[in-house]
Amino acid sequence: MNKRFVTFLPAGVKVEVDPGTDLLTAAGKADIEIKAPCGGDGTCGKCAVHIKSGAAKARRDSHLAARLAEKGFNLACQTLVQDEDLVVEIPKTSAMSKHQVLVDHHQVNSGMSEALSNYLLHVWQLKELFLEKQESPLNGYPLNPLCRRIRLTLPVANLQDNRDDLNRLTLALKKETKCTDINISLAIIRNLGEILRAAHFKVTVLLSEVGGKAEVIAVEPGHGHQPLYGLAVDIGTTTVVAYLLDLEKGRVIDTAGTHNRQARFGDDVISRIVYAVDETDGLKTIHQCIIDTINTLIMDLLVKQRQIKESDIRVIMTAGNTTMAHLFLGINPKFIRLEPYIPTANFFPVVKAQEVGLRVNPDALVFSYPSVASYVGGDIVSGTLFTGMGNADAPISLLIDIGTNGEMVLGSGDWLVTCSCSAGPAFEGSGITYGMRAMHGAIERLEIDPQTYEVSYTTINNGKPIGICGSGLINCLAKLRRTGIIDRAGKFQTSLSTERMRIGETGPEYVLVWRDDTDLDRDIVISEADVKNLLRAKGAVFAGIRSLLNVVGFELESIETIYVAGGFGNYLNIPDAITIGLLPDIPIEKYKYVGNTSAKGACMALLSQEAWMEANSLAGKMTYIELSVGNLFMDEFVSSLFIPHTDLTLFPNVSL
Amino acid sequence: MNKRFVTFLPAGVKVEVDPGTDLLTAAGKADIEIKAPCGGDGTCGKCAVHIKSGAAKARRDSHLAARLAEKGFNLACQTLVQDEDLVVEIPKTSAMSKHQVLVDHHQVNSGMSEALSNYLLHVWQLKELFLEKQESPLNGYPLNPLCRRIRLTLPVANLQDNRDDLNRLTLALKKETKCTDINISLAIIRNLGEILRAAHFKVTVLLSEVGGKAEVIAVEPGHGHQPLYGLAVDIGTTTVVAYLLDLEKGRVIDTAGTHNRQARFGDDVISRIVYAVDETDGLKTIHQCIIDTINTLIMDLLVKQRQIKESDIRVIMTAGNTTMAHLFLGINPKFIRLEPYIPTANFFPVVKAQEVGLRVNPDALVFSYPSVASYVGGDIVSGTLFTGMGNADAPISLLIDIGTNGEMVLGSGDWLVTCSCSAGPAFEGSGITYGMRAMHGAIERLEIDPQTYEVSYTTINNGKPIGICGSGLINCLAKLRRTGIIDRAGKFQTSLSTERMRIGETGPEYVLVWRDDTDLDRDIVISEADVKNLLRAKGAVFAGIRSLLNVVGFELESIETIYVAGGFGNYLNIPDAITIGLLPDIPIEKYKYVGNTSAKGACMALLSQEAWMEANSLAGKMTYIELSVGNLFMDEFVSSLFIPHTDLTLFPNVSL
Repeated sequence: MNKRFVTFLPAGVKVEVDPGTDLLTAAGKADIEIKAPCGGDGTCGKCAVHIKSGAAKARRDSHLAARLAEKGFNLACQTLVQDEDLVVEIPKTSAMSKHQVLVDHHQVNSGMSEALSNYLLHVWQLKELFLEKQESPLNGYPLNPLCRRIRLTLPVANLQDNRDDLNRLTLALKKETKCTDINISLAIIRNLGEILRAAHFKVTVLLSEVGGKAEVIAVEPGHGHQPLYGLAVDIGTTTVVAYLLDLEKGRVIDTAGTHNRQARFGDDVISRIVYAVDETDGLKTIHQCIIDTINTLIMDLLVKQRQIKESDIRVIMTAGNTTMAHLFLGINPKFIRLEPYIPTANFFPVVKAQEVGLRVNPDALVFSYPSVASYVGGDIVSGTLFTGMGNADAPISLLIDIGTNGEMVLGSGDWLVTCSCSAGPAFEGSGITYGMRAMHGAIERLEIDPQTYEVSYTTINNGKPIGICGSGLINCLAKLRRTGIIDRAGKFQTSLSTERMRIGETGPEYVLVWRDDTDLDRDIVISEADVKNLLRAKGAVFAGIRSLLNVVGFELESIETIYVAGGFGNYLNIPDAITIGLLPDIPIEKYKYVGNTSAKGACMALLSQEAWMEANSLAGKMTYIELSVGNLFMDEFVSSLFIPHTDLTLFPNVSL
Repeated sequence: MNKRFVTFLPAGVKVEVDPGTDLLTAAGKADIEIKAPCGGDGTCGKCAVHIKSGAAKARRDSHLAARLAEKGFNLACQTLVQDEDLVVEIPKTSAMSKHQVLVDHHQVNSGMSEALSNYLLHVWQLKELFLEKQESPLNGYPLNPLCRRIRLTLPVANLQDNRDDLNRLTLALKKETKCTDINISLAIIRNLGEILRAAHFKVTVLLSEVGGKAEVIAVEPGHGHQPLYGLAVDIGTTTVVAYLLDLEKGRVIDTAGTHNRQARFGDDVISRIVYAVDETDGLKTIHQCIIDTINTLIMDLLVKQRQIKESDIRVIMTAGNTTMAHLFLGINPKFIRLEPYIPTANFFPVVKAQEVGLRVNPDALVFSYPSVASYVGGDIVSGTLFTGMGNADAPISLLIDIGTNGEMVLGSGDWLVTCSCSAGPAFEGSGITYGMRAMHGAIERLEIDPQTYEVSYTTINNGKPIGICGSGLINCLAKLRRTGIIDRAGKFQTSLSTERMRIGETGPEYVLVWRDDTDLDRDIVISEADVKNLLRAKGAVFAGIRSLLNVVGFELESIETIYVAGGFGNYLNIPDAITIGLLPDIPIEKYKYVGNTSAKGACMALLSQEAWMEANSLAGKMTYIELSVGNLFMDEFVSSLFIPHTDLTLFPNVSL
């Protein structure tokens, strides 16, 4: 079959593909990321592109495709390359911002011509936290990294003391570490003789020691000061962030973040699992995607920190949700998604970097944070560790991480319960007509004049608006309700005397920004369907909190602290969230933003064996509550689909 | 550079090589094995070949090469391919017999046109022992193989019992095995979900369990009767023998043996080490040689046992000397040969078959017998286990294994001392003008008429004589002395009135077979230099025995049993050996032939965890005596260079 060329604008990247390839796949090959929250099913409409030259064929007819076609757009996932070369333009609304913006600080800080997503801000913030504010990533734990250097001066072998090299080394290590179980791989043993003798039986051993068991990572001649770095990686479904740590000084040297390249197989974990299970070599492909993503971050970090070499990175700690952990290690995730939702593993084996293909020292050890259940993963365990909410004397507190799912942990030093509610990715912009991630041009805050119903707004980076991000949507919902544009059930007051209120294709909608003020060729609206989606999302989260409380027999008032975690949480306006009934109506001073706790907990575990052992203990201690069993959750959920709730006594301070 | 063709006769195999390649290397590429005890140094003269067509160039001038050239021969190792294609004939005396004779029993038993070496006989004998005589390879140990099958019926996962798959399996295994430390590799975890569900949570686990630690080798769906085989491999410097075992029935199914393909780098461990250390990629090449050798045996066994598949072999136990163990695992052997003779390891890690490239189930575990020191290896530990001489109530006994080195163990239940003496490979035919291995046409026994000094002889397989094997040489030495042809110091009585006594190129020599009666084009002789070499070899062994006794303060008479092990030992005539002063003059009924104890001990360890643990305990318990320290050995050695000894009181029953 003859290949065809597809050129993608504005990047100008050309790629060669077989006829029959869809444009979303072609873009993936060109390493250009197009939004595809539905995973290429042709249902979300986010991957709209514009064919500037050449003829292509639509995969199937759909209402959505037809509507877009009217406006001159094609769905990338539904458009197939035929006999002609194509030139395809990707509009800003369909493109994902590229990670490259991170490589050059200067570009990000001055030019800012590319989108700047909240995970970038988020990375800066963490960086500031760790680097500039000199806040310790140890968070109270002792510095005792997962990989440490031990300098040994072994007795020199002679005819009287002719013990073998391995025995000589192992005995010295046992004495030094008090570990009885020390493993040294064949790869290291193979050249041990030369290494011991290169500096007359003075050697430096890099060792990872956890709970009385030790693994030798490297043996090097002499007592030099070999570099010793570690990498903590937060593997998010959407975003992956890496932290380069100096293991001996116990500090973060640099950070880098990017999109999870798996995004082209869908926004949420379910579409990733479907791809991994249903496609030929799907697991292999999607596993490679996350490895490639992390390798890109490693490259970025090493470009910035030129004094550090790939081989200097000796240990990696990853934290991610259960699906991400499975995909990262290449474990079949099939049964995570099928009732009774059983993951293959919650505690993962420690592997070597070369086994998974990470481009650091091939013998570097790779640790994965333990999960609790299919939908409460290592990221949540990591967050629980960070907050200290499981510490012996901790009062009752709640950790809540709102992303695609809403995961939460309720507990104290004595007990911990946890659950996950399918909030859906509405707060990440998915399923909302003009929803988008927190990037350049996203509306993050708005005001609606209660008399004129006119809208004023602020956008991220003051860009011309192209959509609304999660925090903007919550703010918008609060304002729509406060001005009476919607009722407590989210129904639009269509009789309102403003031309902003109109009936659109899917029903009632409200114009937030007129076309001329946008960077699009159309009005930005919020529809009644969007509002219903948002209510389901916020209802699921609140119902989850109530369900956990019900299980342990406590009331909202018992909660001493609510930790709000995650990239989204960081930008969440708490009063807004209380107003719409997303978060409990307790005094605002009890709320605490904790940021990317998954990443922070990963750094802690990397720097402190004690932290890592506590993380494992926490994962074993957390009781998972399956919300799909019984009516516990469903009753709460139905009651939560109002603003703020059917039971107004739960929100005494909210008056709408 | 243009390639040239070299065709080797009589096989007719053609190989393409670069000009400058020597013929020994070229033959190696063609998988044709030429004898090269010196490892290609041009000093032993065993690789003589005949160039039938084409011109080649000699690497350097040597007396030996010149002598051979007179007879129309070239040394393969010293002859370089130039601009012409060559046709090279390999005479019988230079060719090694090929292993293929083993594949087809019928061919071996009837045709026998190829050489039949004693290791083949030896394999038959073992086979008879295990297979036909139904003697148990367990040798008294309980059947409790290193790999066993555990059938589990796990509780079926549901919303109430939603533990992860790995946890579900591990808990059940801990309960079943009492092991607290169970390792399951990522490779197995990756598809565990499907495997557990394929037969509704009924699974069969293949597990290796040693000392409270367990490694899961495989998890398979259902409770079927999957085949479960193991392989015990005796890795000898010269010969490699493999035993295919049914792990559940505890019996040997079949055996196969062949030359160690490393032989082309030299006969003894020293030349192998030199090659591994000095040549580019030498270790890699020589490591691959032994892997290829074992893979050939596996192929042979599976061709014979068609019902058994490669993947059915789940565990391998190897036993070999310390150098062989290093080369087998690809461990740099450099320091074994340099004072103070330190091996990299005496206890070796358990690896997976795929890590070393063995063609069995890729996840099969590969165990290596522990060594004691650089020159007392796993083969001797294995032999010590087999004899039971370390058992609690065992009286003082001696295990002696004469090969290239003479290794011995002296001890009882309370103590074990061991040493190795560089006997040199004289008894294996190396360094003796007409010495050869025990193959077709080797003189194994002879008589010398005390009046006429005429010689009569028997050869292996009644072939026309082409040389003398080890047992033949010992017998010859005894007869030469008994007839007064040599004196107690090995000096030839050149005045003897027989034309068989003559002065050859290297000094006095005695004609054993006249040219016309041989399958060669020359007389078979034994020279005074040969006799000196033999005396050094036998002297070293006896001095070793005396040295061990001296260390512990016992006399020869204290020894209750002498176990004579090894391929060579099996054919050794004990009275002859006592006559020449190789073995102690104690009652013949105290001697016991034990055969290939290395292989037998490997089978025991494979079939019984108890045996394997005892083997490891023995290796730790054996005290190595370094004979090169002090005068202990040297004084004994010098006294042993006479027939039978300078101190005749040590040999009261020998009268010559």
